[in-house]
Amino acid sequence: MELANYIEHTNLKPDATGKDMEKLVLEAANYNFFGVCVNPHYVKLAKELVQKSEKDIKVVCVVNFPLGANQIDTTLAQIKEAIIEGADEIDTVINIGAIKEGNYEKVTNELVAQKRAVHNQILKVILETDLLTPDEIKKACLCCVTAKVDFVKTSTGFVKNGVGATLENVKLMYDTVNKYGLKVKASGGIKSKLMAQDLINAGASRLGTSSGVQLIN
Amino acid sequence: MELANYIEHTNLKPDATGKDMEKLVLEAANYNFFGVCVNPHYVKLAKELVQKSEKDIKVVCVVNFPLGANQIDTTLAQIKEAIIEGADEIDTVINIGAIKEGNYEKVTNELVAQKRAVHNQILKVILETDLLTPDEIKKACLCCVTAKVDFVKTSTGFVKNGVGATLENVKLMYDTVNKYGLKVKASGGIKSKLMAQDLINAGASRLGTSSGVQLIN
Repeated sequence: MELANYIEHTNLKPDATGKDMEKLVLEAANYNFFGVCVNPHYVKLAKELVQKSEKDIKVVCVVNFPLGANQIDTTLAQIKEAIIEGADEIDTVINIGAIKEGNYEKVTNELVAQKRAVHNQILKVILETDLLTPDEIKKACLCCVTAKVDFVKTSTGFVKNGVGATLENVKLMYDTVNKYGLKVKASGGIKSKLMAQDLINAGASRLGTSSGVQLIN
Repeated sequence: MELANYIEHTNLKPDATGKDMEKLVLEAANYNFFGVCVNPHYVKLAKELVQKSEKDIKVVCVVNFPLGANQIDTTLAQIKEAIIEGADEIDTVINIGAIKEGNYEKVTNELVAQKRAVHNQILKVILETDLLTPDEIKKACLCCVTAKVDFVKTSTGFVKNGVGATLENVKLMYDTVNKYGLKVKASGGIKSKLMAQDLINAGASRLGTSSGVQLIN
């Protein structure tokens, strides 16, 4: 598969405008990226732009983002709204506080509810690996397996001094979930073609990056 | 007024636990802070801890945080939920993308809806001054005036390489809103007693900081 087909072309900046969304979708169309990844208030616009482009570009929406600290009911409402407005895939942030408390039952229950809320769309779960130990990453992955979500994802890209996706974490996540049919999305700090290819070799089926154009060129 | 009475003792870390909330409320009680500022999923716990402390500590909840990029309906649901669970004050993030597009009508309409949703509780609006020009800060303040919210607030503390509250921005915000009866909350990067006092002198009625204990000692 071409590198471009792995890329979710991402703009989650708080000061992004409608014009920035036009640029994002145009680039995704020109480079045959898998999709665009946007904040909730741009889902509707991104979907319209994708439809106008007449290309098969998926619209990915982040929810409970980037802190993973919403009430679950808010996140469920947010998912419902995003799907009505045209989101093909939902990237949610796991309850990091609950992981730190060792409350994996709560973590799992929240993921089950979200998987139900996305219906037939894809649900990816961001673990925020920068804030977790390898043991917590593994246990969080197993919550995702139990909840039958579609992907585990490394990072939001918003952790202060965070490094984002690492080969080590992608490999750990892949080894934990692949046998159960879940996939891995690497995201955060993917700035070179070499790194992108290494992450794919380590097990990533998707790459979330705002540097897609420079990765290809 | 004592410095402590200005302080909203803040912990919005994505990996904060229930134990961290206990520490936050205990410190707020010991130091007579104005309130505690927490993420939505800890409002209920924070309220219970405050009630147990038998002190007058306000529970402040952030919403649409920190990117200001939710759909407005999600934010309204989030506000409703936070108030049911015991939030005394709501700190929301303004629609920064809409400001950058010059769509101040949209900005104002979203604030009007949120002010209605908080009923009699306090609504503060985070402008995220690190991302705005002085002209945009002024115009955003005037949207807040039109929407009759209670406070304008400088920062989320989550902007990459952001400086947070500055004397210049607090003064600009104070000069723009004070004559209409709105107040100013300074937040982000407040690490010393001297800076705290300078911000109060510049017009701040509240200080949002995770360094409250070290400010007092």
